[in-house]
Amino acid sequence: MNGHGEDQLVFEIALVVPKRKLKEGDDEDSDCVKVLIDELKKEGLVVDKVLGVTDEFIKVAAPLEILGRAAAELQMKKRTQIGMDLQFEWEEVKAFLRQPDGSLFSWCERYQCYRHLIYGIVNWSKSVVTLKCDGKELHWKVGESLLQKLESEGIIKQVFPLHDEITRKKLLRNWALNWWDLTRQPIDEIYLYFGLKIAVYFSFLGMYTRWLLFPAGFGLILQLIDFGSLQLLVLPVFFISIILWAVLFFQFWKRKNSALLARLQIDNPVGTSQVYKFLGMEWGSQQSPLEHVKGPRTDKTKEKEAFQRYEWFGYLLRFRNDALIILSIICLQLPFELAYAHLYEIIGSDVMKFGLTAIYLFVIQYFTKIGGKVSVKLIKNENNDNTEYRADSLVYKVFGLYFMQSYIGIFYHALLHRNILTLRQVLIQRLIISEVVENLLENSLPYFKYSYKKYGVRKKKKRENGSSTGKILFTSRVEKEYLKPTYSASIGEELEDGLFDDFLELALQFGMIMMFACAFPLAFAFAAVNNLTEIRTDALKLLVMFKRPVPRSAATIGAWLNIFQFLIVMSICTNSALLVCLYDKEGKWKIEPGLAAILTMEHVLLLIKFGFSRFVPEEPAWVRANRMKNATQAQDVCSKQLLRSISCGQRVFSGLRRLSEERDFDSFSSNSAEQEVGGDAFPRS
Amino acid sequence: MNGHGEDQLVFEIALVVPKRKLKEGDDEDSDCVKVLIDELKKEGLVVDKVLGVTDEFIKVAAPLEILGRAAAELQMKKRTQIGMDLQFEWEEVKAFLRQPDGSLFSWCERYQCYRHLIYGIVNWSKSVVTLKCDGKELHWKVGESLLQKLESEGIIKQVFPLHDEITRKKLLRNWALNWWDLTRQPIDEIYLYFGLKIAVYFSFLGMYTRWLLFPAGFGLILQLIDFGSLQLLVLPVFFISIILWAVLFFQFWKRKNSALLARLQIDNPVGTSQVYKFLGMEWGSQQSPLEHVKGPRTDKTKEKEAFQRYEWFGYLLRFRNDALIILSIICLQLPFELAYAHLYEIIGSDVMKFGLTAIYLFVIQYFTKIGGKVSVKLIKNENNDNTEYRADSLVYKVFGLYFMQSYIGIFYHALLHRNILTLRQVLIQRLIISEVVENLLENSLPYFKYSYKKYGVRKKKKRENGSSTGKILFTSRVEKEYLKPTYSASIGEELEDGLFDDFLELALQFGMIMMFACAFPLAFAFAAVNNLTEIRTDALKLLVMFKRPVPRSAATIGAWLNIFQFLIVMSICTNSALLVCLYDKEGKWKIEPGLAAILTMEHVLLLIKFGFSRFVPEEPAWVRANRMKNATQAQDVCSKQLLRSISCGQRVFSGLRRLSEERDFDSFSSNSAEQEVGGDAFPRS
Repeated sequence: MNGHGEDQLVFEIALVVPKRKLKEGDDEDSDCVKVLIDELKKEGLVVDKVLGVTDEFIKVAAPLEILGRAAAELQMKKRTQIGMDLQFEWEEVKAFLRQPDGSLFSWCERYQCYRHLIYGIVNWSKSVVTLKCDGKELHWKVGESLLQKLESEGIIKQVFPLHDEITRKKLLRNWALNWWDLTRQPIDEIYLYFGLKIAVYFSFLGMYTRWLLFPAGFGLILQLIDFGSLQLLVLPVFFISIILWAVLFFQFWKRKNSALLARLQIDNPVGTSQVYKFLGMEWGSQQSPLEHVKGPRTDKTKEKEAFQRYEWFGYLLRFRNDALIILSIICLQLPFELAYAHLYEIIGSDVMKFGLTAIYLFVIQYFTKIGGKVSVKLIKNENNDNTEYRADSLVYKVFGLYFMQSYIGIFYHALLHRNILTLRQVLIQRLIISEVVENLLENSLPYFKYSYKKYGVRKKKKRENGSSTGKILFTSRVEKEYLKPTYSASIGEELEDGLFDDFLELALQFGMIMMFACAFPLAFAFAAVNNLTEIRTDALKLLVMFKRPVPRSAATIGAWLNIFQFLIVMSICTNSALLVCLYDKEGKWKIEPGLAAILTMEHVLLLIKFGFSRFVPEEPAWVRANRMKNATQAQDVCSKQLLRSISCGQRVFSGLRRLSEERDFDSFSSNSAEQEVGGDAFPRS
Repeated sequence: MNGHGEDQLVFEIALVVPKRKLKEGDDEDSDCVKVLIDELKKEGLVVDKVLGVTDEFIKVAAPLEILGRAAAELQMKKRTQIGMDLQFEWEEVKAFLRQPDGSLFSWCERYQCYRHLIYGIVNWSKSVVTLKCDGKELHWKVGESLLQKLESEGIIKQVFPLHDEITRKKLLRNWALNWWDLTRQPIDEIYLYFGLKIAVYFSFLGMYTRWLLFPAGFGLILQLIDFGSLQLLVLPVFFISIILWAVLFFQFWKRKNSALLARLQIDNPVGTSQVYKFLGMEWGSQQSPLEHVKGPRTDKTKEKEAFQRYEWFGYLLRFRNDALIILSIICLQLPFELAYAHLYEIIGSDVMKFGLTAIYLFVIQYFTKIGGKVSVKLIKNENNDNTEYRADSLVYKVFGLYFMQSYIGIFYHALLHRNILTLRQVLIQRLIISEVVENLLENSLPYFKYSYKKYGVRKKKKRENGSSTGKILFTSRVEKEYLKPTYSASIGEELEDGLFDDFLELALQFGMIMMFACAFPLAFAFAAVNNLTEIRTDALKLLVMFKRPVPRSAATIGAWLNIFQFLIVMSICTNSALLVCLYDKEGKWKIEPGLAAILTMEHVLLLIKFGFSRFVPEEPAWVRANRMKNATQAQDVCSKQLLRSISCGQRVFSGLRRLSEERDFDSFSSNSAEQEVGGDAFPRS
């Protein structure tokens, strides 16, 4: 297991290099791969070379101390015994809290250290080193990272995290194949193996599915029992209760999320508790975009103005981008979707309908891809403070696209045609088809990709060997993993990983069942069943189908929470409209156009009232910057002293105190005023 | 001035004792007032005795060092140079930031120190001290606070903060009488003289009035220019723009508030920045209610459960109280108000109307008093975490009462009668009368109270002297101040001060002008003019009419912000209804009862959706408790070391480092492991 025994090394990273033909006469010492392996070993890493069918694999493992030194170099912040996050020091290792399984570093931290170690191999000598590779010559310049050089030359084809076979099999048994646990999952172990973001996703999925059982049961009752004349009274009750259910669910999810984080001893950005945020890395990335603005000695008001200008310019950019996206969705996508929905309605022949749908599906594929790319480009123009914000911004924009795509047809049926039966049909179609098909695709597509890649490798190998007989076996596990696809999002690989697609699926499902709850109460039962399988298939997908994903440390579900909240508000409005349609089957209820206009205006204003506070933060940028600066300052001053006192259990402090009592303190300290303040001179205990 | 020169002492607290007749033969040393004065002097305070007409006044001032020592004893947290709040130490005074005027302590901190000093006079001797007072004998028990004893015996009639004549006059000149500054105010000076809460109020009032000028101008244009056929189109535009105005205003107020706090170097509980909250006193009060629940060695899950039980029990209590208040408002107050509004409508004769209004005004006086008392009682039953929450809870409940009282009659006219003209009349009446009368009352009532008290004192004096001639002059300033009324709220003196009434006035005005904006756009202009005078009259009231208020340190407008936000939502709904009435003068627009029911349900659900998150916090109590515990722990460990390093400019640390390098460090520190960790053994520099 990669956590339990830290003495027991596990290879966690693999580098892929193509197989090279070494000629007899070659000087093996300057072979670039040989140099790389030597350098890795020099760093203290344990290296294992595996020969695959067409590629060579360098598996890397790191002893705990090497990781610790890397973490200290990275100035990583870790939770200490006193509950504060302080900069890691290998010497004071006792002061830091352990993971639930007893290991020192989480997987995410280990991954960071690994990257730091292997990308930190730099030419420290004073001259250019000449490396050879397949007869080509490479010039490794002074101060250049070896790995980056090799990557840019195409010699290192990939660096990817490796599965840990023992833990993987244990998780497979305890989690992915443990169907009878229903919504229960070993979240701590998922966190240890996949990192926080994936653990939060599965925790959310589990809780959501568990909570879904209530409206699913209610919906089932509504479907099965005929309430006779009360039927029309039961629906509003259902409506109210599912809205309350949703509101409660998300509030309790936030609580569960912060409880989960507290249990795992992780900073909690949810709620009011950004106490420790200042000790995290966020500040570093926030500071950077402004550094060029302020010189070393600009006065305070100028700095404030610069911040203010920067802040508002950021809002302006963001506003422009949002407006662009919203406009293009309304002007381009909406007519297209409406046209499809309308054509589908008026076309009589089934063949034509089929053809139309095929074309439609083909077109929207491109549509969303283009949309995603445009969004990514727009976001890159924004001066968003950190990647987390960027990812959120992308999520909002892309969700806008999918929202239109998924629901506009349904809205068309629901509101314009007032045809509840068609609506119900469409909903059933969408729910069943989309979910069954998606679940199947999600799991089979990676497998096909994997098989195709295997086939490609075999073919290439055979061509090289010249013979077309004899089966080629992939004996090494690392090569098989290399051929598995990466867990990545369908849009914008840089900003999001595969969780984007999983969350998108959940959000679209949630919107579908909530917004049309009154038209089709049974949908909740469908969704509950689907999610029960989703938990296990998603687990299977992660454990079996994909490479081990790169860990991410997001502590909440981020932008998705806001999207879910938005869907609740939407569903209040759409269900009200649906109820009106249901009660008014003959279309007798007339609404004055004036009244309708006023009502629309009212709803828009309410939306603005509640949505606006999200766009302008309550704290000006310069205030936040000040606070952050103060906090980092404070932290810099106390970090070392604190660590020492924690790890020695307070003894050092009292020792120092007696020391200073015995000596003439003040004269001494003024003598040593020139002494450096940095920590390296501090004696290691 | 109480700030600038700290060498220049200002008497800031006064104690009032009745004049006693000392007989010749009395032992003056055991006279209680004499003893008190001696003890005060022993504490290092500067004491001045002033003889008034019927009372004696003991004025107290404190040199800076005495205050500093008291602050250290109180373990007061203060902002340091590195931006972190640390426990105050007189020895490390250089490490702490100064107030804007260069003084070390803010008025609120000084007041705390004064109280600590004068109430901290305790009988340290081993026997009961016998004191004499006007022939009576008092037994000052061991360990008892002298001041509390004297207060309970009625010998000390009052302890109140004194005005500082120089600063007061300066403020009077620069602020209260400086009408031409319009909304500009010297907020920093107000903060220094009155404390944070009052400064925040005036900052809010100033910004609100400044922002009011826009809708006031718009309203005036609407009133003056006849748009002809466009008239009905202009109103919705006005409606939308004032809602946007209000939303923007409150968002920008939050920003201004946090900017103000950053400028004054105060912790900011607004927004996300509760970073430093953990260093404040809040935790102490939050911990206490649970202390009896957990023994010293209960395990974690038990503690968690206890917290959870405590938390939910708290919500239950709060919910019950809120339900009680809401029910009683709806069942008792609503019918009463409606009955008055209806009677007023149907009664023809003006005399009867006048009589009815007189009775009504008489009755509601009692009604609100009773309501306030009931609320205070209910809140005392809640286990709210700190007084700030309690005060907020009271504000919500009492505002509910006033809301019904102020608006239900207007709603009656607006919505049931659909009579815009009557509505407009009522609004003008209310606005002009309430504001003019209230402004007058606010300032004259305290003056009359003051005069009445003066008269009472003179009468008493004359009765004592036996003669009825000769004018008695109040020569001492301190006696005049003593006779001035206290700045207190009309309800619940313990939980709120006079700001409650001022904020209530603002909130009711805001509700009035916003909720009926479409019926009477000119109201904004009225309000703007009123608020311009309100700024100066409120300032005058504080500086001239009242005793100097006890400083409070609330950093935001607290519950009032939520009330204002609620009023915005209400005004979206009421204005929509008003617009419907306006467009539909003949009452032609029919609305199906079914549709109306669905719309109502929708609005209620939207309200629940947006309101609910306020009731259940996003973080479970045990998580917060954990976090707080961690934070205080961290702070305890580092406070002293940090202070030392800040005040000595980093030199001490390097000194210590060399010291420990020279010695065999580890053996030493283990020898001194028994040394106490507390700070008193630390050498004073």
